[in-house]
Amino acid sequence: MTTHLPLGPGAEFDSIRTLLTQWGPRARGIGDDGAVLDVPAGSKLVVSTDTTVEHVHFRREWLTPEEIGWRATMAALSDLAAMAAAPLGVLLALTVPAAWRDALAPIAHGIGEAAAQGDIPIVGGDVTDGDRLALAITVLGHATHPLARSGARVGDTIYVTGRLGGPGAALAAWLAGRAPTPAHRARFAHPEARLNASRWCVRHGATAAIDLSDGLAGDLAHIAAASGICAELDLERLPVLDGVPSREALASGEEYELLVTAPAFDSTAFAVAHAGLALTAIGQIVTGPAGSVRLREHGRAVELPSTHDHFVG
Amino acid sequence: MTTHLPLGPGAEFDSIRTLLTQWGPRARGIGDDGAVLDVPAGSKLVVSTDTTVEHVHFRREWLTPEEIGWRATMAALSDLAAMAAAPLGVLLALTVPAAWRDALAPIAHGIGEAAAQGDIPIVGGDVTDGDRLALAITVLGHATHPLARSGARVGDTIYVTGRLGGPGAALAAWLAGRAPTPAHRARFAHPEARLNASRWCVRHGATAAIDLSDGLAGDLAHIAAASGICAELDLERLPVLDGVPSREALASGEEYELLVTAPAFDSTAFAVAHAGLALTAIGQIVTGPAGSVRLREHGRAVELPSTHDHFVG
Repeated sequence: MTTHLPLGPGAEFDSIRTLLTQWGPRARGIGDDGAVLDVPAGSKLVVSTDTTVEHVHFRREWLTPEEIGWRATMAALSDLAAMAAAPLGVLLALTVPAAWRDALAPIAHGIGEAAAQGDIPIVGGDVTDGDRLALAITVLGHATHPLARSGARVGDTIYVTGRLGGPGAALAAWLAGRAPTPAHRARFAHPEARLNASRWCVRHGATAAIDLSDGLAGDLAHIAAASGICAELDLERLPVLDGVPSREALASGEEYELLVTAPAFDSTAFAVAHAGLALTAIGQIVTGPAGSVRLREHGRAVELPSTHDHFVG
Repeated sequence: MTTHLPLGPGAEFDSIRTLLTQWGPRARGIGDDGAVLDVPAGSKLVVSTDTTVEHVHFRREWLTPEEIGWRATMAALSDLAAMAAAPLGVLLALTVPAAWRDALAPIAHGIGEAAAQGDIPIVGGDVTDGDRLALAITVLGHATHPLARSGARVGDTIYVTGRLGGPGAALAAWLAGRAPTPAHRARFAHPEARLNASRWCVRHGATAAIDLSDGLAGDLAHIAAASGICAELDLERLPVLDGVPSREALASGEEYELLVTAPAFDSTAFAVAHAGLALTAIGQIVTGPAGSVRLREHGRAVELPSTHDHFVG
């Protein structure tokens, strides 16, 4: 914490106390101006920052406070997964309006649960007043071979983890005034960063990766652009949740699943190592215009739908 | 950036373009989910996060956009100075309301200038919409021997860099509807993180340090508490700016000067290494109640005034 122990009076210190109570021993290195961490010799440091803001990324009535904390933390951890980095620590900058102050304990609980799931200590943070709830989360990790977006090569297979379309379907339901199905809602409210899966992939020859935040079509375009290759998706192979048309899954953002390219994975070995998590081959890197994405349906070229942007409401 | 290159349309990407244009080669590792950095072998990683929010830390009419960016970045870098860490990288999470969007370029310019002064690359960030301008800044550094607050020992001398009281006097003037003097205003608007000074101090035997964010009296109390010692200040020795009574300097926050304890420094050697920056002995660590701060004036015990809290307006 850049705020100071022992804590004095005032709303800021009350907030910090609330956080520390929720986090217990998961909060470490609190009490100096900065936290001190060890990066293993031979490893690179990997860092990323990600902000979740009320009205931009969610509406209050959609999520419980625990889910808000969990989801924001997992969204940040997902960037470490995309780089195949092992978690080192998380720092939080929370903006907490008066109307949210009573929800701080369960928000902190959700953050702590996500950090526990990702096996990452909370090493710093601060709390400020503001008009909208905002969680700016910085994650630190380390990797001997960080995965980049730029390594995909012609002949690679394109893989995706999990089953897609839940967050997009949940969002569409809420915006239409309907309740999403429990399965779709769960994928929006309780995503999981694929930290172990990505490290398995890099050990088994992954050439490039990205986490699905903008939607499969858009995120694959980022790999295609960074790698200077053409990516070809087979629509009928997309693993989708029940009730989600494949075309809609293409544009479903904030999935936090992993999109990976590799010469070939042994799917059976992956399944053994990650019980319950699907890894599906959905396309291939082919000769074609650099930076392009092509969609096929049963072998025929079809038009690519437009991509996801953040809901702003 | 957790946002993605090549940039697509939309306000978020326009904002990122504005930032990258301002920062030029100072922005590095942009375009993957995380940035990759090297921590020198044998060094510890030091991290801290700090948020500057409109209405909490400043009012719009007090500062130029460049000064807002500079000040927020220096406030964060000051935590690295307090730990005697060498800068590695800075990550920004900016909340930019529509009313501030035109000011984003000069804000980014101020951030870039402060980063250049601190010799630190900008390795990540994101921009979100919101109702108040907020700059959540995470700094990464490395140190073989990070300075903590807990190392002060009986017999140590207490030192402070610079001349105190400017930010407090500027704030008092603004809140009273007056214009601060240029010298006082400059210390509020254009602080400098004491990165080189702190590393000099650790090489010359510093035992503990903190940066002055809550005000000298409050920050010294943090050292006293963490080190389990009694700190004694000599009021008449405080280096103050013209027009600032010593008692007011005790409570002037957001100075971002360095408070350091050490058996003894060679002030002449410090002056040679840091032209223009004062290093002043202002007290000593003595036998007494752990965690306490005593104030003396010409050798006689006097009452300690109450400490600074953030302006909230």
